[in-house]
Amino acid sequence: MIVLGLDPGSRHFGWGVVERIGTRLIHRAHGIVHTDVNEALGERLVEIEAALVDVVRVHAPTEASIESIFFDKNAQSAAKLGHARGVGLLVCARAGLSVAEYPPALVKRAVAGSGAAEKGQVAQMIRVVLGLREAPKADAADALAVAVAHLQRSQVMLQSPGRNIRGRSSV
Amino acid sequence: MIVLGLDPGSRHFGWGVVERIGTRLIHRAHGIVHTDVNEALGERLVEIEAALVDVVRVHAPTEASIESIFFDKNAQSAAKLGHARGVGLLVCARAGLSVAEYPPALVKRAVAGSGAAEKGQVAQMIRVVLGLREAPKADAADALAVAVAHLQRSQVMLQSPGRNIRGRSSV
Repeated sequence: MIVLGLDPGSRHFGWGVVERIGTRLIHRAHGIVHTDVNEALGERLVEIEAALVDVVRVHAPTEASIESIFFDKNAQSAAKLGHARGVGLLVCARAGLSVAEYPPALVKRAVAGSGAAEKGQVAQMIRVVLGLREAPKADAADALAVAVAHLQRSQVMLQSPGRNIRGRSSV
Repeated sequence: MIVLGLDPGSRHFGWGVVERIGTRLIHRAHGIVHTDVNEALGERLVEIEAALVDVVRVHAPTEASIESIFFDKNAQSAAKLGHARGVGLLVCARAGLSVAEYPPALVKRAVAGSGAAEKGQVAQMIRVVLGLREAPKADAADALAVAVAHLQRSQVMLQSPGRNIRGRSSV
């Protein structure tokens, strides 16, 4: 099971790939697509699309995972985020990947033990859990975190198939 | 000058193509991409993408035009709209089309004479302006309207190149 985690943003789009072999979580790769705010939004979405298509081709994930949108964000930032998020979902769907969706607090709890964990804590826990030399930058750490959360949830579901995992939904 | 107007939505995505020859506006085509709300959002975005790619291939627009997002919408609907809108901008950018953006009130004023015109009035005025037999459905009418608004603005700009057209911006 190889999971692509996505942390969408039109300016910084984080991604991370984590594999589970048995009970071990193995870091495969992560990165951030940075785009130029002076470019037209459409051009920036094209860059994000191209980068994600490459990631899928190179790392061959079998599933994908993404945070659900904070609805306490304001409409403007939700809309901007939506543009990039839509491109992420599009690339995954074209590649035949199902995309699981988790609330941000659940991701933080899965990785850092608390739904109120700060960005830095999440990145540090990701470093520890995946045995990385240094903590990834925030956008990539969040992408790896949502991949790890999905792998942990999937394992719980495998172990207790009758249990309905609260908070997971398909996008 | 052939303009593709877009009225994005993840459930109903309207599009319309209008050409200007001299001072005449000529209706080329319009349509609505309907998607199934029971499908995963990613799959629906794939359908929207495929339909828009076809529209661009068949009607060969030279420019595109879209409404700017209402920021008085709530965050949830802004985010949903953003997903579909992002796919629209992506398809246009890949095809090398620049996308002009207009506030909804400006589009209504350009087409129906009032920034507070209702949906039905916009559709009726589009019918008259483009010489259609019947008024297009709302989502397609709005897409044609933003194309017409762009053609009218472009003409004003051609006639008075020094004038800065308020309300137009590049996405």
